[in-house]
Amino acid sequence: MSKLFTFEKPLGMRDTLPALYEAKQTIKKLLASEINSWGYQFMDTPTLEYYDTVGSASAILDHQLFKLLDQQGKTLVLRPDMTAPIARVAASQMEDTAQQPLRLAYSGNVFRAQQNEAGKPAEFEQVGVECIGDGTISADAEMIALLVSLLKKVNIQPFTIAVGHIGFVQQLFLEVVKTEENAEKLGRFLYEKNYVGYREYVKSLQLDSKEEQRLLTLLQVRGDYSKIELAQTLVESEEGVQAIEELQQLWTMLEAYGVTEFVKLDLNIVSHMSYYTGILFEVYAGNVGAPIGNGGRYNQLFEKFNKQKPATGFGLYLDRLLDAKGYKGEIAPRSLVLFSKDRKLEAIQYAQMKRNDGERVVVQDIDGLQHIEACIQQYETVYYFIDREV
Amino acid sequence: MSKLFTFEKPLGMRDTLPALYEAKQTIKKLLASEINSWGYQFMDTPTLEYYDTVGSASAILDHQLFKLLDQQGKTLVLRPDMTAPIARVAASQMEDTAQQPLRLAYSGNVFRAQQNEAGKPAEFEQVGVECIGDGTISADAEMIALLVSLLKKVNIQPFTIAVGHIGFVQQLFLEVVKTEENAEKLGRFLYEKNYVGYREYVKSLQLDSKEEQRLLTLLQVRGDYSKIELAQTLVESEEGVQAIEELQQLWTMLEAYGVTEFVKLDLNIVSHMSYYTGILFEVYAGNVGAPIGNGGRYNQLFEKFNKQKPATGFGLYLDRLLDAKGYKGEIAPRSLVLFSKDRKLEAIQYAQMKRNDGERVVVQDIDGLQHIEACIQQYETVYYFIDREV
Repeated sequence: MSKLFTFEKPLGMRDTLPALYEAKQTIKKLLASEINSWGYQFMDTPTLEYYDTVGSASAILDHQLFKLLDQQGKTLVLRPDMTAPIARVAASQMEDTAQQPLRLAYSGNVFRAQQNEAGKPAEFEQVGVECIGDGTISADAEMIALLVSLLKKVNIQPFTIAVGHIGFVQQLFLEVVKTEENAEKLGRFLYEKNYVGYREYVKSLQLDSKEEQRLLTLLQVRGDYSKIELAQTLVESEEGVQAIEELQQLWTMLEAYGVTEFVKLDLNIVSHMSYYTGILFEVYAGNVGAPIGNGGRYNQLFEKFNKQKPATGFGLYLDRLLDAKGYKGEIAPRSLVLFSKDRKLEAIQYAQMKRNDGERVVVQDIDGLQHIEACIQQYETVYYFIDREV
Repeated sequence: MSKLFTFEKPLGMRDTLPALYEAKQTIKKLLASEINSWGYQFMDTPTLEYYDTVGSASAILDHQLFKLLDQQGKTLVLRPDMTAPIARVAASQMEDTAQQPLRLAYSGNVFRAQQNEAGKPAEFEQVGVECIGDGTISADAEMIALLVSLLKKVNIQPFTIAVGHIGFVQQLFLEVVKTEENAEKLGRFLYEKNYVGYREYVKSLQLDSKEEQRLLTLLQVRGDYSKIELAQTLVESEEGVQAIEELQQLWTMLEAYGVTEFVKLDLNIVSHMSYYTGILFEVYAGNVGAPIGNGGRYNQLFEKFNKQKPATGFGLYLDRLLDAKGYKGEIAPRSLVLFSKDRKLEAIQYAQMKRNDGERVVVQDIDGLQHIEACIQQYETVYYFIDREV
């Protein structure tokens, strides 16, 4: 093994040194405490799943999966998200009707293979919730209200939750361009937030001018809730009108939660088009370019587990949350009890007394130090239990 | 995908449902708080590492590694332990002399591929510490004292820490059987705790009776610290005598820590013979057949990262700790605020008030329930905000 290679990590893999670890822990504790207080129950699933079970059910593209073979020759994946594994458990081990709807939560690492995309993490931590078995708009509203509550608890300011409806977008596209194929192309531009490309593609379709205008007007349905009136002029089908009504119900609930000041309407959001089925949302905060979290309704996922269950949920990206909050790299102060062996008993007892008072105390045999002066610099306080000359 | 296969998990992979998750969290919080109070700093490393870097440096056998190829064709492994990855970080990113000795801690999942070994987990969580850069016996004693402190904090009773010395065992074997190869065979029997096999093998060596007796007497050096006198009669070499002296110094330190009542001498412990280099130990508790934790001095590991650093540490197996403690499967009680839409505002505000009082409160739209009577059974208290007839 070459010396340079000795310390290398796989592409996109990162170490979490103590200062960052402590900052993450602080945020995770706040999030978990608030999620628990809303009655959600944390659970965990394995890092490895069968490709056929969870890999193919997740919203993640195949080439982003880490795959390996087990000893029976079956393909395994490192879980690319938490929603599909939790759906597997909910559909198999939590079927008791008394438990429905399920309110579950997770805090775990997920994996996405990177193709030389410098800086993109291949393993990252998500904290999120799933509400399974409740098809009401109240459940959608609860997601957004809980999200607001979490972001307030970790003291991220300002933040915005952009809310859309994938059913609305799909209906509009189908009404205008007729085929699923064309609708999907339009959706892909929105997914990539490539609005210039979207406009060009719309013009290339050579629709009559009224129809073209419907597709172009969609790009303006972003902003205050009042934009809902513009949205109403764009759809005619029953499903399209239904989507508008769902958004209206949602806003009534969000008013009851008192969170509308943090929420915007954005009917250009599509996230994973093949995955979500109704209301969906993205969270933006600080100067972080990408969403720090996202979520929405996914009423079809359970069909992959032979069940019919409406569900909604969201996940927060812990790293991005930390970026948005501004991470200082501070670490809790420690004290040092430095001893020579002849005074070990005093030193040990003194350290234990200080620990009982809540101090973080290192007990160190002076014979174990190579650089005494340098070492003691890192401690806030040093207590000496040394008899002989040093 | 067949219906039966829909819910399957890879061999040795397990789900952690909410009751177990909460029990684990409670223990982890207690452990982390105590580890922090001893001045250890938690950190984390990636789930995936290069085989050449960490996979080959770990104490885990090759066929137990989960391996996969990255897109450059390099072999990756799911980390089989935490010590080797932490050594990689300590040797590369924590080289500042002022930081030495390093006191690091971890709480993470490790992976061991299983060959049809029913019930053996392939992914499990370890909580542990590493003290890196301190070669004194005081550091070894600190490991055992911290271990005792942790087991007291999580209220595991009774528990025993069996302490051995791999240097002693190796010296004795080399003095008697001369070749490394024969010494390794003897060590393997001890590693497997196959004392019958050990006796038979010793007899098959056809040594003179005094030499044979030395090897057989080793099996009696288990029990009270007074057995150290028996151990003294077994070795002659400088290294063997040195090992005895280290154990004597250790006991003096353990007396200062006031923990000798929890410690036994057991010079039959070898753990991973190729990994440890000095004092080593195993923890037993409750009716759990396997050690709930183990550790020891590993002064040679850093050579794999081109460094010279004495080090010691230990890891606890969280699942076994839970088994030893006796896990009751209880889950924190929750309340339910059940509402109809016309009273949503009252319901939401009432729930928030209860949450502020520390209750865990689910807010549920009654329209989202399919089985109202069954659902309310799972809550300790139900608050109704419903105007119409249900």
